[in-house]
Amino acid sequence: MNKIAPSVSTIADGKHSLPVRVFYEDTDAGGVVYYANYLKFAERARTEMLREIGSEHQVMKKELGVGFVVRHCNADFRKPARLDDLLVVETEIMEVRGASIQMRQTVKKANEALVIMDVKLACMSIDGAAARIPEAVRAAMADLKITE
Amino acid sequence: MNKIAPSVSTIADGKHSLPVRVFYEDTDAGGVVYYANYLKFAERARTEMLREIGSEHQVMKKELGVGFVVRHCNADFRKPARLDDLLVVETEIMEVRGASIQMRQTVKKANEALVIMDVKLACMSIDGAAARIPEAVRAAMADLKITE
Amino acid sequence: MNKIAPSVSTIADGKHSLPVRVFYEDTDAGGVVYYANYLKFAERARTEMLREIGSEHQVMKKELGVGFVVRHCNADFRKPARLDDLLVVETEIMEVRGASIQMRQTVKKANEALVIMDVKLACMSIDGAAARIPEAVRAAMADLKITE
Amino acid sequence: MNKIAPSVSTIADGKHSLPVRVFYEDTDAGGVVYYANYLKFAERARTEMLREIGSEHQVMKKELGVGFVVRHCNADFRKPARLDDLLVVETEIMEVRGASIQMRQTVKKANEALVIMDVKLACMSIDGAAARIPEAVRAAMADLKITE
Repeated sequence: MNKIAPSVSTIADGKHSLPVRVFYEDTDAGGVVYYANYLKFAERARTEMLREIGSEHQVMKKELGVGFVVRHCNADFRKPARLDDLLVVETEIMEVRGASIQMRQTVKKANEALVIMDVKLACMSIDGAAARIPEAVRAAMADLKITE
Repeated sequence: MNKIAPSVSTIADGKHSLPVRVFYEDTDAGGVVYYANYLKFAERARTEMLREIGSEHQVMKKELGVGFVVRHCNADFRKPARLDDLLVVETEIMEVRGASIQMRQTVKKANEALVIMDVKLACMSIDGAAARIPEAVRAAMADLKITE
Repeated sequence: MNKIAPSVSTIADGKHSLPVRVFYEDTDAGGVVYYANYLKFAERARTEMLREIGSEHQVMKKELGVGFVVRHCNADFRKPARLDDLLVVETEIMEVRGASIQMRQTVKKANEALVIMDVKLACMSIDGAAARIPEAVRAAMADLKITE
Repeated sequence: MNKIAPSVSTIADGKHSLPVRVFYEDTDAGGVVYYANYLKFAERARTEMLREIGSEHQVMKKELGVGFVVRHCNADFRKPARLDDLLVVETEIMEVRGASIQMRQTVKKANEALVIMDVKLACMSIDGAAARIPEAVRAAMADLKITE
């Protein structure tokens, strides 16, 4: 148990990292993190990654008229996290297509992968129709990917 | 442990009752229901009570241009509920004023009160301003109260 | 919007069905059900299915010394559910192996599939080791599957 | 919208402060933070405050055989927080008694109080009985209070 609290997200080697502390709200009576909550951690990481590259939800919605929704999530639950654990969610952009993005998100504890999620995001316009990913977002994501 | 699953809400003796089953998602590593989740149970009960008297959220919003928000919640946590418990949320309307409603909501297990919440709801217009409670809603609530 | 509240789960044609009402707690600022919450609905359905066949969590843990954990979840998010929707989670047992079960869980609204989840559960002993599924549970699940 | 992500908690002027970012999971279809989730933010802040003074949950449980549970929460919801908001939860210890602690927790946005919670925690032994607050915890909390 260290005293380093959840802090700023970082980008390095083509990966975005977000520290996540496990609180009571995340756990269940089995004494471990409730399985659906790893998807919350993953969404926090995606949001912070978008913020890092200047594409916060609100900015994308107001200025570009689009947003991302999760179309698919393939989650492999390998080992449980527990109360007070300090986790890191690593997010890698695997592929940027015209209207969708494929990411791999790994929840780690001390460099051990606990949960691996392959997530497909679709770009949608405000009215709910499929939309092309705006060039600015695409370029920022390509930059992120290239640093790999 | 019985097999009676959460079911229809009922109104009797001026009280609205909603059965609520405790699932893993509701519990925490302490082995009990996480304290904030009793407020979820309470909100489910208020929603079902409004539905019972014909004032679903969507109907109120679309037809009357108003909705309720929680202004105050005074919660007394007496005893913990646990996984698989079958609870009942009892909701009583204590007072209906011009633009607000005072309710008492009690989470019970086998007739023992586990958590008691005194909740004040304010009526708001779509634009976020305080609004008078529509007459139809007021009348339906008075009916509910009168049967007491 | 009808007044039929979430109620008893049922088993028919080899499928277990659990009605689930969408409350405010389930939705997000996008106006739809937050993606991780479909996994909560799925877990409620699995729990009620186990209860239906006499294998509640507590019974399995106390009498048999085992429990199920989710090892894998492949979720396809096709269409969003919204506030006040009355959904049904259908659960089908696809395969029962020595120490794991493969299920398909579909969240439907008026017979349209909104979210499809392929879920693999592993049977674990109290100390966290892989364990064979107890014969009583296996038999009850086979019965459920056979009625298909 | 700035890029400063949620980070380390701090203690100054007798107040503990924890930054909290509002993510999709925290919001509801009303476009604001769901009311029960402010209690999650408050619990995160209490946990981090305990960690700051060397009394993490696990340490208290293992070394001292006790833990804190919420007995009472009086919450005043003044203004709503929204998606992407960067909030601060300020926690002040108001009174430390033999077996309970009274705290005031305020959720602020840019120095404006959105939600104020008066929270009473009771100290419990592992077996669920009321217990005296251990001297080490009491001393650390008195220190925190004195810096006021």
